[in-house]
Amino acid sequence: MIEVEVKAHATNLNEIEEKIVELGASREGEEYQEDLYFNAPHRDFAQTDEALRIRKIKNENSEETYITYKGAKMDKVSKTRKEVEVAVEDPSKVADILQSLSFRPVATVRKNRIIYTLGELIITLDKVHGVGDFVEIEIETAEGEDTKEALNEIFGTYSKIGIENGFERSSYLELMGIH
Amino acid sequence: MIEVEVKAHATNLNEIEEKIVELGASREGEEYQEDLYFNAPHRDFAQTDEALRIRKIKNENSEETYITYKGAKMDKVSKTRKEVEVAVEDPSKVADILQSLSFRPVATVRKNRIIYTLGELIITLDKVHGVGDFVEIEIETAEGEDTKEALNEIFGTYSKIGIENGFERSSYLELMGIH
Repeated sequence: MIEVEVKAHATNLNEIEEKIVELGASREGEEYQEDLYFNAPHRDFAQTDEALRIRKIKNENSEETYITYKGAKMDKVSKTRKEVEVAVEDPSKVADILQSLSFRPVATVRKNRIIYTLGELIITLDKVHGVGDFVEIEIETAEGEDTKEALNEIFGTYSKIGIENGFERSSYLELMGIH
Repeated sequence: MIEVEVKAHATNLNEIEEKIVELGASREGEEYQEDLYFNAPHRDFAQTDEALRIRKIKNENSEETYITYKGAKMDKVSKTRKEVEVAVEDPSKVADILQSLSFRPVATVRKNRIIYTLGELIITLDKVHGVGDFVEIEIETAEGEDTKEALNEIFGTYSKIGIENGFERSSYLELMGIH
């Protein structure tokens, strides 16, 4: 799976939410995410631009855990990269396995996320604790597919909601000064 | 979790099964297990005596997947070691994550396992494809607990079912000549 994704700083999330609703976006839900990021013993993810995390997601109805690997970014304008995510049963056991393999926990990112979809776009409104407010627009494509069209659609949508700058390629982890 | 475990070569699994049933063991089930073992990029598990695997378990009713980490063996007579196991959703995604992190698949071990319990003992009768027949007796203890008593109970049970030798500390992987 390739995640074609562009993130932007948001000065007013409520205003952005109104605009995407006007475009016809549907609200999929709201959740609290807690991401524990790890670095590897055999290479430095800050250098290789990879990421490995355990994500806990809590919403009204459930609590879920995922392991996620993200590969290096694949172009200069977006956050397009390989992403593999798999549901797991128990976050503390996964952390124990990773630490037994000498992976080191480096930081925790906490955020409240509201999720919308608009056609094939996934639009998320994030309040990242200690970092700030952001909007992300994402399309998931198969590996090997051309990502240019997806990027055009994403930037076109940003334009429609009045966002022409403030795009941010750094991860929340990097914005926290960790990585 | 510490797994205190002793394995023995079995010349006649049916006979052993009769004897453990006579001792009062209860049959918990039968399953097919397929274990894909990985080696690490930053240390050689054949040297460090660790193991990392994806286990698929199939029985009549279900198909499950687990990631398992095993630490180095902790004594000279048994296979006692740290073990962390966590259920995951999708074996191919886990393999993709491990390979993205430069872990390499080294071998697959396939076996048919019949599982009994006898008090706190777990007794398994294994037909390991291409390797042979084995019985394993195991007790799970908390980390930090004394394992001597557990070992006494395990060897006492082996004695009761007429097994006084043929104990095997090598893993199935090692017996396959892989590791």
